[in-house]
Amino acid sequence: MPRSTTSSSPPAKGGPVTLAMVARRAGVSPQTVSNALNAPDLLRPETLERVRRTIDEMGYRPSRAAQTLRTRSSKLIGYGIRPTPAGTTSPVMDRFLHALSQAADAAGYRVLLFASPPGGASLKGHEELLDQHDVDGFVLSDTERNDPRQTWLAKRGVPFVGFGRMWSKRQVGDWVDVDGASGTDAAVEHLTALGHRRIAFLGWPRGSEVGDDRAEGWQRAMRRHELPTRGRRAQSIDAVDAARAAATPLLDAGATAVVAASDTLALGCYHALRERGAAPDRDVAVVGFDDSPTAAFLAPGLTTLAQPLEAVGRECVRLLLARMANPTAPPERVLLEPSLVLRDSTPAPDA
Amino acid sequence: MPRSTTSSSPPAKGGPVTLAMVARRAGVSPQTVSNALNAPDLLRPETLERVRRTIDEMGYRPSRAAQTLRTRSSKLIGYGIRPTPAGTTSPVMDRFLHALSQAADAAGYRVLLFASPPGGASLKGHEELLDQHDVDGFVLSDTERNDPRQTWLAKRGVPFVGFGRMWSKRQVGDWVDVDGASGTDAAVEHLTALGHRRIAFLGWPRGSEVGDDRAEGWQRAMRRHELPTRGRRAQSIDAVDAARAAATPLLDAGATAVVAASDTLALGCYHALRERGAAPDRDVAVVGFDDSPTAAFLAPGLTTLAQPLEAVGRECVRLLLARMANPTAPPERVLLEPSLVLRDSTPAPDA
Repeated sequence: MPRSTTSSSPPAKGGPVTLAMVARRAGVSPQTVSNALNAPDLLRPETLERVRRTIDEMGYRPSRAAQTLRTRSSKLIGYGIRPTPAGTTSPVMDRFLHALSQAADAAGYRVLLFASPPGGASLKGHEELLDQHDVDGFVLSDTERNDPRQTWLAKRGVPFVGFGRMWSKRQVGDWVDVDGASGTDAAVEHLTALGHRRIAFLGWPRGSEVGDDRAEGWQRAMRRHELPTRGRRAQSIDAVDAARAAATPLLDAGATAVVAASDTLALGCYHALRERGAAPDRDVAVVGFDDSPTAAFLAPGLTTLAQPLEAVGRECVRLLLARMANPTAPPERVLLEPSLVLRDSTPAPDA
Repeated sequence: MPRSTTSSSPPAKGGPVTLAMVARRAGVSPQTVSNALNAPDLLRPETLERVRRTIDEMGYRPSRAAQTLRTRSSKLIGYGIRPTPAGTTSPVMDRFLHALSQAADAAGYRVLLFASPPGGASLKGHEELLDQHDVDGFVLSDTERNDPRQTWLAKRGVPFVGFGRMWSKRQVGDWVDVDGASGTDAAVEHLTALGHRRIAFLGWPRGSEVGDDRAEGWQRAMRRHELPTRGRRAQSIDAVDAARAAATPLLDAGATAVVAASDTLALGCYHALRERGAAPDRDVAVVGFDDSPTAAFLAPGLTTLAQPLEAVGRECVRLLLARMANPTAPPERVLLEPSLVLRDSTPAPDA
């Protein structure tokens, strides 16, 4: 039996449970069911008890049903908050979440949280928020290739917007993302303008879409400037010690500048430089990515790419509201440019 | 006219607007008003329109009224999210917020956000969340002396819990806080055990309750060890450059260790040490406060006091639920211990 594509309550066979179905099963009038929900003191206790039991048994969700009838909206936007990973320099999601709340508030909506488990995407929290609180839509972050959430929500006709692409040709839905490739391209532009030619890239292991995107920008800018990329690329998990080890061969090969896929990787470069008595404000230029709070506090301050998180939050709300207003419009995707924040870690190469 | 102490909707004269009052004004039965709200398709359009207009005019909030009757709960906890201040090392509130969401979820509640304006506490967001979404209670953070929120909520009979004390004898309500004095006391204990005697304190300007509390722990531990505190205390706003300047006289006066009221201030000490060719892992010990993400990434890694934010989130939810269950119970206050995270910035003094 096909699932309903318009109701997001746990689908009963053939569609959502209605007030009329509850009334029939309980042997009362629809008015009595309505009263049980909204004016229980008008009913005799036995009747109230019988109707409530029937509601529970059938899994009837009155306000969800009301929403399906488009008589009201909960004015709630659901968002799964993830734990900040330990050992990264990049707790930037709180800035995003504040921007999201602010944009939602301005539009008459509110952000309703659930705690997302660490690791992969989960559908459970989304299902509960739909079921218990009638959210009008969702903002998804940390989207991945083959992320199950978009398809799951789309099937149920629930509006959503992703912060992050799905990275798949068969992707559904609207998203807002930051153009990582454009950011690392701009970093290479800045470094070549300073006179650098041996510009390396320290990225994450291939297969992470965000990481591959950031690598791609470095690659294309190098190609444009006819600079060799062979032997100038290394990879590391997003941890300082691993990044220090990974950066060493790049420095051995004579790189005068390193573009890193994250501030954490950039910090690994700092440590690799220190190990050899060099410094990122004198000997080798280092560019990070994320403009994490740590970047400003390093000595020397880290030149890095800042994600426009306030704009991402605003755009997420704008796209979500547009989707609610017009469920059948073609998907809208917004790619925002990161900006290069110049600090002290990008000197010109030695003359 | 005294305000109602049990309703949190915008108070009408003499108490909240009821369904019966709306019915009387609109010239219809209470059942018709209930239908207008819950089964509008049962009414003729003219009747529906008239009832809706009356509802708007009188500011009737059906679900709020229902909650006042204790027939249902929204299962929502309101929380005002603040923008992360720029230029601090300490964006720790996202960890708190995840912990809060997780604890709320586990108890069948959800956290509903509104964007709090930067600066002082505001009542507007709280009022809107009560009015529009019927939240069952609030968690308040960044509480201050003479914070208007607690009194405002208490007057309306709305349950709340503060993350942070009110620091006033006339405080109302429940709170959870971190014992800052106990943290800096533990820092001094650690330093004296290493052999330090000339232990300075770099704090915020007096008058900030959190800052004064952290200063107090240093002071009492110094007194317990019969160590002099005169000339060993300096103050700075929470910014690295200001802290560097403020730390200099402490170092001039021969301090072998500095306990700082925040990681940002500790970082100022790092810079002050570097200026004089000294280092926090060799010459002078430095202890921070907050265990911000930056602390682990500094070179050397910063010894600092970690706030038990997960426990704070859990306790906030526990106290709030207890308050909802028993509005007249005496206030409960929970003070949690920070823990000293040892890294490389606390060497023993030179022999």
